Amino acid sequence: MASLPKVLIYAAHSAPAYAEALRRLGSPAQLLVAQDPDEARRLAPQADVLFSWRFPQDAYALAHRLRWVQSMGAGVEDIVAAEELRRDVLVTRVVDQFGGMIAEYVFSELLARVRQHPQLRAQQAESRWQHIEVGTLEGSRIGVAGLGSIGREIVRKARAFDMQVSGLSRTGESDVEVDRLFGPEGWPDFVGDLDVLVLALPLTPDTREVVSEKVLAAMRPTSVLVNIGRGATVDQAALVHALQAGRLGGAILDVFREEPLPEQSPLWTLPGVIVTPHVSGPSIAGRVAGLFHENLSRFNAGKALRGLVDRRAGY
Amino acid sequence: MASLPKVLIYAAHSAPAYAEALRRLGSPAQLLVAQDPDEARRLAPQADVLFSWRFPQDAYALAHRLRWVQSMGAGVEDIVAAEELRRDVLVTRVVDQFGGMIAEYVFSELLARVRQHPQLRAQQAESRWQHIEVGTLEGSRIGVAGLGSIGREIVRKARAFDMQVSGLSRTGESDVEVDRLFGPEGWPDFVGDLDVLVLALPLTPDTREVVSEKVLAAMRPTSVLVNIGRGATVDQAALVHALQAGRLGGAILDVFREEPLPEQSPLWTLPGVIVTPHVSGPSIAGRVAGLFHENLSRFNAGKALRGLVDRRAGY
Repeated sequence: MASLPKVLIYAAHSAPAYAEALRRLGSPAQLLVAQDPDEARRLAPQADVLFSWRFPQDAYALAHRLRWVQSMGAGVEDIVAAEELRRDVLVTRVVDQFGGMIAEYVFSELLARVRQHPQLRAQQAESRWQHIEVGTLEGSRIGVAGLGSIGREIVRKARAFDMQVSGLSRTGESDVEVDRLFGPEGWPDFVGDLDVLVLALPLTPDTREVVSEKVLAAMRPTSVLVNIGRGATVDQAALVHALQAGRLGGAILDVFREEPLPEQSPLWTLPGVIVTPHVSGPSIAGRVAGLFHENLSRFNAGKALRGLVDRRAGY
Repeated sequence: MASLPKVLIYAAHSAPAYAEALRRLGSPAQLLVAQDPDEARRLAPQADVLFSWRFPQDAYALAHRLRWVQSMGAGVEDIVAAEELRRDVLVTRVVDQFGGMIAEYVFSELLARVRQHPQLRAQQAESRWQHIEVGTLEGSRIGVAGLGSIGREIVRKARAFDMQVSGLSRTGESDVEVDRLFGPEGWPDFVGDLDVLVLALPLTPDTREVVSEKVLAAMRPTSVLVNIGRGATVDQAALVHALQAGRLGGAILDVFREEPLPEQSPLWTLPGVIVTPHVSGPSIAGRVAGLFHENLSRFNAGKALRGLVDRRAGY
């Protein structure tokens, strides 16, 4: 190898943490670090490789040496939409890393809801011992839309809680063990008898607002919508209306059409709605850096990369 | 069968709910219902069977027709301690019913803690979008003391969250699949490297305050104690001291030496401590009534009862 590749690390706040993790791993690369769009534009011309999250779209045009973009996350809709990015540049995303942690988020919030945490915390705050009735996940019906590495982990944990599990996949086929399996034509039937609908979908032209007013109307008025995929897979205005009208039992939302969620959004304060700031899949720098480090060794050795994105399919 | 047995249903608040559930099941019995100790004493002389929770100790002496006591819960320490209860009266407890729900409680609270629910809820209350770092259960070390039907379910769910699992059983043997297994002599080694210690122990002379000052001192200062068994298995004063001194990371407590937990107990307000009013194993009347109904049919037919208690062993 004539020289080490130059890797531009870009992330709004955490680029130095990723750089530190790669240094500890002894990654075979020269590391360039950018934390704001101006730095990104200044360093882009030198980069052979980009290890980044939400890289400024216009800066791709400046990266003429670029051969590979490793996303720090599982979603790459901004990268595949970047027309400035040459078609011969490889794009990879994080796979098989977030499933467990995102599933933890889903079950932490579902359990807090069914086990009445708000009331229990309020009683403790008053040093008050009072029996309350709590519910259970056992036997209730969960549907998981999107059966990739994230959906698969949600299904696995749902089984450990003895829930009835349905799944929906892009192809209508899956090796994930579910009680009922649906394809993209089956949305109304899929959601019709669920207690919990979890969206673990990538954002593609096919999934944009796929949870439409019509799909929301097919849900039971006691059911809960959980979104840990991408905000724009839901018609957010229709969701707000359904919640305001009591046609939905609640929502647990970690992703939104616009992030940060604007302060004036009604979602912040609607009863039965949990809003979290996109924390379901924590970007634990060391872990994602470990995946990149492994891919970098493959890249240097000319081997196939893990998590390669089909840029036409969008994931 | 000459006549239907007379079943006295006793529970402080919920006796009518149990009676209603048994009527719906068409249970072959004459039902007597008592909600306070005076009613219990008045009706005790008629009872062939007692289906009860925390029956007044002195009323056992009045129940000269009594042949069988079915506890509405898993713990029967008050019944086996009742000297007024003739030795030939059968005692049964609820088994294989609470495991899933109690394990749900454990994971609802562990997940809320590791996933920073208090901070996320505080931010939502202010409509504030701010990234925070959250943790994970993956890879952390949980130890389950007591590997009966409840401990078994906790282990099962811990595995679904990819935790490292140790177990401790009375005999040092178990068919529950754990990474490390300890017997009653192994407490200090068992707790020494745990992130989470869960107590799923019955209260017997052997387990009373088995989590002593010494055992607490052997725990890591970041570790969390979870008690969903019986409060008196822990030296509660030593626990308070360890928490106040920062020698323990926190506690999740659903059971206490004295219940209700007195209002002046420091546990209510200690940082890192969750107090709940014995709700981990919700006594869903229909479910427990279903078990009793089945046992009642066995009783009438002279068959062996499920959940029979060895009154000398205490469970």
